[in-house]
This record gives sequence, structure tokens and C-alpha cells, in this order.
Amino acid sequence: MSWNSFGRVFRFTTWGESHGPALGVVVDGCPPGLPLTEADIQPYLDMRRPGQNRFTTQRQEPDQVRILSGVFEGKTTGTPISLMIENVDQRSKDYGNIAEAYRPGHADWAYDTKYGFRDYRGGGRSSARETAARVAAGGVARKALPESVRIRGYLVELGGDAIDRANFSDAAIDENPFFCPDPEAAKRWEALVDSARKSGSSLGAVVEVAAYGVPAGLGAPIYAKLDSDLACAMMTINAVKGVEIGDGFAAARLRGEENADAMRLGADGKPEFLANHAGGILGGISTGQDVVVRIAIKPTSSILTPVPTITRSGTETEVVTKGRHDPCVGIRAAPVAEAMMALVLADHLLLDRAQCGVTRS
Amino acid sequence: MSWNSFGRVFRFTTWGESHGPALGVVVDGCPPGLPLTEADIQPYLDMRRPGQNRFTTQRQEPDQVRILSGVFEGKTTGTPISLMIENVDQRSKDYGNIAEAYRPGHADWAYDTKYGFRDYRGGGRSSARETAARVAAGGVARKALPESVRIRGYLVELGGDAIDRANFSDAAIDENPFFCPDPEAAKRWEALVDSARKSGSSLGAVVEVAAYGVPAGLGAPIYAKLDSDLACAMMTINAVKGVEIGDGFAAARLRGEENADAMRLGADGKPEFLANHAGGILGGISTGQDVVVRIAIKPTSSILTPVPTITRSGTETEVVTKGRHDPCVGIRAAPVAEAMMALVLADHLLLDRAQCGVTRS
Amino acid sequence: MSWNSFGRVFRFTTWGESHGPALGVVVDGCPPGLPLTEADIQPYLDMRRPGQNRFTTQRQEPDQVRILSGVFEGKTTGTPISLMIENVDQRSKDYGNIAEAYRPGHADWAYDTKYGFRDYRGGGRSSARETAARVAAGGVARKALPESVRIRGYLVELGGDAIDRANFSDAAIDENPFFCPDPEAAKRWEALVDSARKSGSSLGAVVEVAAYGVPAGLGAPIYAKLDSDLACAMMTINAVKGVEIGDGFAAARLRGEENADAMRLGADGKPEFLANHAGGILGGISTGQDVVVRIAIKPTSSILTPVPTITRSGTETEVVTKGRHDPCVGIRAAPVAEAMMALVLADHLLLDRAQCGVTRS
Amino acid sequence: MSWNSFGRVFRFTTWGESHGPALGVVVDGCPPGLPLTEADIQPYLDMRRPGQNRFTTQRQEPDQVRILSGVFEGKTTGTPISLMIENVDQRSKDYGNIAEAYRPGHADWAYDTKYGFRDYRGGGRSSARETAARVAAGGVARKALPESVRIRGYLVELGGDAIDRANFSDAAIDENPFFCPDPEAAKRWEALVDSARKSGSSLGAVVEVAAYGVPAGLGAPIYAKLDSDLACAMMTINAVKGVEIGDGFAAARLRGEENADAMRLGADGKPEFLANHAGGILGGISTGQDVVVRIAIKPTSSILTPVPTITRSGTETEVVTKGRHDPCVGIRAAPVAEAMMALVLADHLLLDRAQCGVTRS
Repeated sequence: MSWNSFGRVFRFTTWGESHGPALGVVVDGCPPGLPLTEADIQPYLDMRRPGQNRFTTQRQEPDQVRILSGVFEGKTTGTPISLMIENVDQRSKDYGNIAEAYRPGHADWAYDTKYGFRDYRGGGRSSARETAARVAAGGVARKALPESVRIRGYLVELGGDAIDRANFSDAAIDENPFFCPDPEAAKRWEALVDSARKSGSSLGAVVEVAAYGVPAGLGAPIYAKLDSDLACAMMTINAVKGVEIGDGFAAARLRGEENADAMRLGADGKPEFLANHAGGILGGISTGQDVVVRIAIKPTSSILTPVPTITRSGTETEVVTKGRHDPCVGIRAAPVAEAMMALVLADHLLLDRAQCGVTRS
Repeated sequence: MSWNSFGRVFRFTTWGESHGPALGVVVDGCPPGLPLTEADIQPYLDMRRPGQNRFTTQRQEPDQVRILSGVFEGKTTGTPISLMIENVDQRSKDYGNIAEAYRPGHADWAYDTKYGFRDYRGGGRSSARETAARVAAGGVARKALPESVRIRGYLVELGGDAIDRANFSDAAIDENPFFCPDPEAAKRWEALVDSARKSGSSLGAVVEVAAYGVPAGLGAPIYAKLDSDLACAMMTINAVKGVEIGDGFAAARLRGEENADAMRLGADGKPEFLANHAGGILGGISTGQDVVVRIAIKPTSSILTPVPTITRSGTETEVVTKGRHDPCVGIRAAPVAEAMMALVLADHLLLDRAQCGVTRS
Repeated sequence: MSWNSFGRVFRFTTWGESHGPALGVVVDGCPPGLPLTEADIQPYLDMRRPGQNRFTTQRQEPDQVRILSGVFEGKTTGTPISLMIENVDQRSKDYGNIAEAYRPGHADWAYDTKYGFRDYRGGGRSSARETAARVAAGGVARKALPESVRIRGYLVELGGDAIDRANFSDAAIDENPFFCPDPEAAKRWEALVDSARKSGSSLGAVVEVAAYGVPAGLGAPIYAKLDSDLACAMMTINAVKGVEIGDGFAAARLRGEENADAMRLGADGKPEFLANHAGGILGGISTGQDVVVRIAIKPTSSILTPVPTITRSGTETEVVTKGRHDPCVGIRAAPVAEAMMALVLADHLLLDRAQCGVTRS
Repeated sequence: MSWNSFGRVFRFTTWGESHGPALGVVVDGCPPGLPLTEADIQPYLDMRRPGQNRFTTQRQEPDQVRILSGVFEGKTTGTPISLMIENVDQRSKDYGNIAEAYRPGHADWAYDTKYGFRDYRGGGRSSARETAARVAAGGVARKALPESVRIRGYLVELGGDAIDRANFSDAAIDENPFFCPDPEAAKRWEALVDSARKSGSSLGAVVEVAAYGVPAGLGAPIYAKLDSDLACAMMTINAVKGVEIGDGFAAARLRGEENADAMRLGADGKPEFLANHAGGILGGISTGQDVVVRIAIKPTSSILTPVPTITRSGTETEVVTKGRHDPCVGIRAAPVAEAMMALVLADHLLLDRAQCGVTRS
């Protein structure tokens, strides 16, 4: 209900700024007895970690997570799990010029207008560094999900260049620096990002997150819809400007009989859907099909290309954002979107068993 | 935090099914002293009311709202405002065949899987009739907003046929049955919808909602972002499959310098933006520009075209949905999306003044 | 989280004023498939109903509850259950004199100060008539509890005259107009209340609510303690000024070894407690013993004895409250406290199974 | 809404166990621009700090608070304030015997029953060490209150020995190790506590918290009453078994005309109350009088006197709790209760201005 918490019964609260001593998250409502160590969480942070190649920011952060509470003898205790990540590579001096000038496309001016002042160092609370905390929380959420659930985030478009679905390879996602399931697109994207970076510009992207093996029955018909919570969750990620479930905007161009995923009985006598235009959610409730969400990420607003702007003291100027920035924040958004998917699913799993008294599988 | 409430401090809870005696909403947290009568709310319900022309369902519902509490001598008292709308034109017998067969594209099967059974009459709680309650709540929310705020919902695409922005006329929105701002598109859509209806099919649509005159400073940097709450709000509307803020998915195809709305000082010395790719929200906080949201609405799933499906008892069949349905639910979604915009803005206005102690204008 | 809702996952929202057309409650998050009709709820309303004898207000209200949603073919559907009770015996003219003068001991002045004006008829939203809505909601909550749970509310003190625990008879509670488990005390109380009524005064009371058969394991160690939620729930009832769990304030006078309920193994090998100073809750979690709560209810503030006060327009005066009032509001608080116990237990049952994935019995 | 958060708009979430590396709290929703340093918070922690005299536990904890986020250049930024306190003097080996045996009067058995296992070291999450986090959060809350507000917590009874109100001295509270406003009682209590400690027993206490200078108008008539939130807040403190507002249980023994605080006009023409039986709250809303709350604290359950109990493996035994414990936990509860008062008032101040759009003073 407050400003920095998310979730209903599996709930997390993040804290921390880009240039403070640390950032972290408190995960509350986690089921007791789940095996959990830092090694369960670290791999997801490593996926998101900056400075691993030339396509992301050069800020060097080990992003080592530390569990400060809620785990005893290797198992969750049912009490709040506090996770902390130290900031080690801050260079606040990089931000001298933006203390005064508002960066267009950034929260700077709106933030200052709301709160009367702001921590300008690295964007303060508005920095995408906050997403490290979510990714850590997502690592906990995954432990609360049935083992059948597998979550994958990947880019389906970068700088306007879309993948070819015919080339989709799950394995490829881990084999290039773009979380790109189409090896050929990945090659093209290298050139795209290099070129944008060199010209002091930046690019947007579309990330798709799929959750496989989600049991049917999660969600609710109206204000706790699985899809409305996913839309909210995804839109809280920095730079996201759009969210689609299943066919999304394309569904608005289908006719009723094209869009309605027909049902048949499978060889095992269980219901089967003949298509998945719905993205695994109907009437707010999961259907057991793959849950598919896509998010649009705008190009990084911190760029070396000068943009007209104004200053705190009310003069016109142009601003160039130095510091170390991702030429395409969409890339590192893939593990973040995965984490948000895991967090929403864990919350709905618990919410569903609260009301219905069953554990779905 | 529960299943049928929305909002943080300005909060509403809806109840009711398509074929029960009534439906309604409790609006809680409304500021005291606002003038409010049923006549303030009714016009919005009338915009959404079915049966007004051949392009929407023929169910005849007067949708007369009644204020049952929270108003004394014509002013809100600060206590919960209970609004009720009676259902008068139910024809439950129309739904005999779908008691047994699951309608593809509908919540039927998922709902049954979750709860073990369902009220099949008119979709029960999953019916779009629930949106009447939101529209009524939205009428209250509008009273809580500064007079400067004006909210407009309109269709920018129907059945894949988009409006021409060059033809945009605010006045036109009220002059055709499609809430269409482009008079020429409105003419084309008559034929489109007629054709879909006659062939027993249905169409999707894209609705845009704009809020003009929203003060800068509403929202928060992370989990109570104005845009994440809007995304959540819009995705709770029946049949919505996608949400965009500002340029939305198109922003993912822009370069950083194209997307960053440059700032200048206006003639009055106040900050001005030279563009509005951001849709009036940066870093989760309103900028004072027009807040612009677009939603994708899938084609109605209740159609006369037979679709393969299964029954509760586990046999394969085809289903044809009789009853009275909108050939394009997207049309009546325009006033619903307006209501959700008003409700989110009212909530954020109150949330902002809770934290910052100011009333923006 | 808002002003008129209570509960976390089993949540209810009440609305309505003393002199409006109706009052009601929306119960959200109720498990699906529970048998529920108006006849399940009405008996609890009848227990609380005014005008049944000379010891309560003479306002004649049938308090007939109507289920408007959330039930289909006699079973809860998992969607919001809207309950409405019409007000039929309003006499607003009784309140003419208090429109101007603030009644000491009442919310009048504080309410006016907060909201700028108030519905003075019968106390408006501050009227104890609101408790009818809770009692109705409590009737639903009882259906969500295990059958083993039995809840009893009764008076243990009235006007300073306490029962003799040696006389405690569960059956007696239903056999006198005071919900008094001690038949001898009940006789004394007749005279006490008659005397107070005749002299234009009023009396306070202490109500005890016990829940028998509550499974061990409900609650949480810190901010969702079963006892903190009970304390909150009970303190929301009109005129309540104190809450105790188990020995309550008397526990502050015990030594550690007296207060610590010793444990042994029962004949069946299961843990047993040798005493219940704790009132069935330790560290915020139920122990399986009887959950025992006591509440202090102040004497009715609406009395015929003149009390010095001031008016809206800022003059000194004396006020006499006519209208029809309970000489001891504590009497009818017994069924209300029962309802709040049921509501808190139902919420914690669901919250516990959300986190722990088990259904306790 | 989850298990370890408290508050509506000014909200905090605590984490940490008695024997983990650290404990802490995230304060969310704090107004921006408030001056805040660690030195503003530390004095309150020092009041609660153990090991300062022979009447409290001998565990030596410096309880140094560290601000990890939410403050920039000495002012709150409006983003979450993360506070951390390291645990330095753990002696887990002290708890070997209670890993197996359940301590009567403690959460041990209930906790184990709920979660399936527990962190037995020092009570784990159920330890009163958690209250350090609240006290730190309370230090932040005080900054959000008007300067007129002064909060004082003190003991009015210890081991059944009550203070004499005629001796009440505000200054005396700081001059003895018992937060006792009656110097003579303080002397008697030295002997009482010494005796209990030496005999391996423990004592209960009654703490009163008064808030002076609270503006009228905070709270709400029903489920967000100022007093119900205070009751909830106080009951979340370890070992609390009862809460009273104003006259509390004694009010149940008054007649209506005795209890109703009469009103007059003061010399300045402003309303005055001639008494404060109500404890500063009427109908859930503050009246501008002193807000007075009393809480009953049971005697420490960790005692050296053997108590019959059972073990995890199902045998009967007696348990003696070594480790270092407070002979009367009620003493250190005074600063904790102060903190909870500050936190509830800050939350209601913000909630009130959300709805009513005014800042009270």
C-alpha cells in the first residue's frame, strides 16, 4: 500500500539509491522451510550485473547478495528475508553537470517538482540500480514456485529490429550478450548497439517473458487479475512504456473466432487449447498455458548527444549525460522482467491457496 | 489488497454479477465536502449504457445509479459512498447452453478450474456489466480532481482500421456511436461493425484515454508509479490485452535523442516540453503534460460463429454464444477507461498530498 | 488499508449511516463453495437487533439482511458478497437539538473538526447501527471457519457489577437479555439497568468473547499477530476503550512462573497446557487453547442527564440527548464482538494457509 | 498487508532475528525535506538499549543505527529510509537447552507448530530485539510530526505496585532506571526487581504513553480509528496483553454523565474539555486533548525458575531459561511504546491530510 512495496501476501519492499552505500530488499510472507542460500540468488544477479561486456554500462559492480535474516540452517523461517547488495563503484563526480540541468526523458524535473529537491547522483532512487533488489527478491520467489514452473526473459526486438520467430532457440538466449533467442538477430544487434554507442545515442527494445508450467487457476476475475498484476509489475520497471499479454495489441486486430483459443480434449483426456492468443490468462485467471508478457522499453535517456533543456535556476541550456550508461537498458531488463514474473506468480500462488485452500500444480 | 478493491487512499470496491439483482460499488476515502448528487454520476453511466444503438448489446438496462450513503445535504461526508445499480433486463435462459460448454476466449474454463463451479449466467462476475460500477465510482473521482483536469476516452482503431490523426476532432467524439474523434473513420466503422455483427463475428479496438490539465508531481519513483497504477487499472478492464503510456511500443523503436522530450522555458518563464513521447509521465511522476494511455481490447469472445470447445462433463463440442452481446466491446470501453483514469488520478492526488503536504494544481 | 475496510485476505468493507436508506457490507475473499443463505446470517443479526426488550433502544428495526451478490445456487462463488440491510425506523427529527450542540462523550465535535460538517442524524456514520453490517459479515466468516470453532460473546461485568465465575453457565447466556452467563448477576443487572434508564443515565460493561476449538498455528510473530489484529478489531467497535487477551492487565501482576502456562503431554500423547493465562495466543500465534478476549465498553454518551457543552456557533449550553438509545451499549456489543472474532479468525485462517500451505484443524 | 509491515501511508517494515548478523527497518512514505541524521535517531535507541544497569538484560549491544538510504545532504528525500543495527553480542550457545524444550509462556511451541521448525537462538524473530528496529523507525516518525507534539512513555505499575499519581513528575521519568514518574515508587521498584531477579523470577508492568499537543482531527470513524490503530500497534509489542485508551476498563464502571467529558469555551474562545476520560480520542478521532494509552506487559517468560514443559521429541521435562534476560521486560517497553505512538500519529497525520487536504496543528 505504500510507495516501495509490491505484492499482496508474498510481498517485497526495496530500498536504496544508485550512489548510497548499499541497496536491498525485504521479502515478507515467504513460505517457511524452503531451502535458500545466497547461491540460489546470485546467478540471477549475475545475469543482470553490469560491466560484463561492451553492450552494457561499464560500471563495475560485483552485486554480491547477502542474506541478513529469515534463513536458519539453510531454510527460510517464514519471517522477513532481508537481502543487501553493496554499491562499490560509485563515481558521483560524473554527475556534477546534471545536478543543475534536468535530463530530458529522465525523472529529474518531475522528481524535483514533486519532492522539492533530489539526489542527482546517478538518478538517485530513479536509477535502474534499484532493479538489482528486485532480481534478488525474484530469486527467493522462484523457490516458492512449483518446480514445474520455468521462467524465461529474452529480447524479441532491439532498436526496431525484430527477431525471426522461425529462428527461436531457447538455448541461444544464453549464448549472446542480448538474451536474444535468434542467433542471427543477435549478430545484427551487435552492430546496432555498437553504432548507437559510438554515436552517443541509445536504443529501445522489446522484452518477452514467458512462464512455462504455470498451473491453471491463479488470479481472480476483477482487481487481482493475474494480468493486471503483471501489467503493474512490469510497468514499475524503469523505462518500460508498454505491456502486452499474449497477442496484446495484435489481438485488437483479430476477429472473435480467430482470437478465441479453441479447446479440445488431449490424448490424456485433459483439456487442451489449440492456440494461445490469450497468453495463458483468461478472465484474469491462468489457464495452464504458457503465460506470455511483452514489454516495450524506451531508449536510455542518458546519452552523449546534446538535448535542449533547462536548469534548476531557470535558464535554457543543452545537456550531455556523461557517466556510465547502458546504450540499451532493454538488454538488462530481461532478467528484471523474469524476476517480476516470478514475484507475481509466487504472490498469486499464495493468494490462491489462501482463498481456495488448494495448492495447484 | 483484496480481490475486488482498487486504490490506495481513494479506494473503491465493486460487487455484483451480470444476472444478480443489482451491482454496485463502495467508494472509500473520498474527501469530505464535495458537492455530489446522482446527477453528477448518471451522465457517465449513460455514456456506457447498453442498448442505445445497433452497435452495442441490445440488453436494455436503464443503469440508474442510487447513492445509498456518504452524502448529506448534497455533499460528501468523508464516509463511504455506496452506489447501487439494479439489473433489470436479465435473460438467464439465454445462457442454458453455456452452463455446460466452455466458451473459448472467455473466463469460463479457468474460472471453473479455480473455484470448482461458476455462475454461468451472463458470465457472472466476469461479465463486463461490472464496469458499470467502475464508471459510477469514476463519477465520484472526477469530483475529487482539480477542475483543470479533463479526461477523454476515444477509439483510435477498430477492427484494425486506425483513425487519421490529422482528422482528430474533440467534438466529433460525442457525435458518433464509436467515441471516434475522426468523423471519416466513424463512417467506415459503421460498415465494419455491421458486417461483423451480421456474420456472427466480433472486432477488437484500441482505446486512447487522455487526461488534460493533470498537475505535475503525481506518482512515485518505484512501486506506486502513476504509470504502473494506470497499467494495472486499465488491465483490470475486461478484454484488455495491452497498455501503452505515451509512445508505448513505438518508443522502443526510437533513438534516445528522439524520445527525450526536450525542455525549454515558455513565454511565461515556466518549463515547457517540446514533445510528449513520454505521455505525461517520467520516472513514474506526472510532468504536467497530457497523460496519454492506450489500451488494446480483444474482440468479443461471445460470438455466433461456432468454435470448437469442450464441456464440463468432458466431451468435445462446438459452442455458439447466443444472448445479447456487443459486437465490439471496445466501444463501450471508452467511458470505462475514462473512469479508471479518473480513479487513479484521484488516488494519486490524495497519496501525493499525504506525503508531500501540498495540493497541486 | 482504507478507512472502512478490515482484514487482509478475508476482507470486508462496510457502508451506511444511521439515518440513510440502508447500510451494508461487501465481504471479499471468501472461499468459494461454502453453503450460504440469508438464513445463515439472520440469527446473528437477530441477536443484535434493537427493540427486543426494555434494556435496549426502542428503535424498531427488522434488520432483514439481503444477499445481493456472490452466491449462486446456495453457495459462495468466490466473488464479493454484498449484504444490505434497510433502515426502516428513522426519526431524524429527534436529532434537531444536537445538530447545533455537540454531545460530550460523542464523536460530534471531533467529527465536525475533521470533516468540516457532519450528518448529525443519529450520529451518522459514528452510529452503532454500523455494527449491524459487521454482524452480517461475521455470519459469512463463520461459514469459512472449521466446524470445530465455536464463538461465544457474553457480559462479565455491567455497571461495575461483575459476574461470579463460579456461576458460569454457557446455557444461561441465551436465557436473559444481557448475554450474561451468571443467572444471579443477570437478575441484579435488570435492576441496575432499569434504574440507570429511569434516571436518564447509562452504564458501561465488560464483554468477554471466547473462541473454542481454534486450531494452533494462526497468526504471526510480529505485525500480523493474531492478538494485535483482535485488539484492532475490537477497538473498532463503538464505545470500546480497552482490550485484553487472556489475563490481560491482571497478567502484569503475576510473576513469571505463575504466568507461564506449563505444558504436559495429554493421555493421547498430544501437548496440553495446564493453564490458559495467555488466552490462547503466544508470540502472536494461536496455541489451540481457547482464545479469550475482553473489551471495556464505556457508558452510552447519549443520555437524558444534561451535560455542559458548546454549540457549533460557539456558545455554551447544556445538552440532553433525546432520541432512542441503549442505556447500556455494552449489551448489544456481545454479538458484535463475536462477529469481529469470527472475521479475524477467518482472515488468519486464510492468511496462514497462504503462507504455510496447510489447512489447520 | 503482509506480516512484518505496519502503517498505511507512513509505513515501516522490520526484519532481523535476535542472533542474526543485524536487524533493521525500512521506513516508507516519509515526507521529503525533513532534516534527518543518525543523531536524531540514536537517543531513542539509547533509551531502549540493554545492559545499562542491573535491572535489564546484561546483553551488551551498542545498538548503533546506520542510515543506508533515503537521506541526501541531511534531508529525507521521500524515498525509503533503510536503517540497520548490527547484532554484536550474541551468545547462541546459551540457547542449547531450549532448542529441544519449549519454554512455557513463550512463542516456542506455537511457532514450531506453525512453521514446522524455528530459529531457537534467543527467540529468533520472536525476540524483543526486534523492537530496536521500531524504536529507530519511531525516531524518523517524530520528525514527521508537528513540533508541538511531545510523546512520553513511563511505567505506572511494576510487579503490581502502582505509582501514586499525586507524586507524578515528568522530570523524574529520566532520573531512574524504570522510566518511573513517581520517585518514591522508583525506590520501591529497585527492591522489587532485585528480589525477582535474585529468585530467578520476573515481573510484569503497566506502561502509559501520553502524546501531548496532538492536533484534533486525526483518525476516522470506523476501521481506521486512531484508537484502533493504537491498540493494534501496542499489541504488536512483545509481551503486551492489554491496551486501554483514556480511562479504559475503568470507564466501564462510570455512569454516562461521569464519563462524558463536558465542554466549555476557554478564555481564548476556543473549545475546552473539562476532563479527559476519553484519552484524547472520541469516535476514533483525536480531540486535541492528551492522547493517553496504557499497556499491560506480562512478566518475562524466560526465567531461571523451572517450569514443567515438553520437548520437540515428545517427552515431559522442566525447563530453566539461561541466557541473559530482562527481569521485567516492561521497563524497556516504555521507549518502544513511545515509538509506536509516534509511528501511528505520523501515519494518521498523513492519512488525514490525504483525505482532508489540510495540515493540522
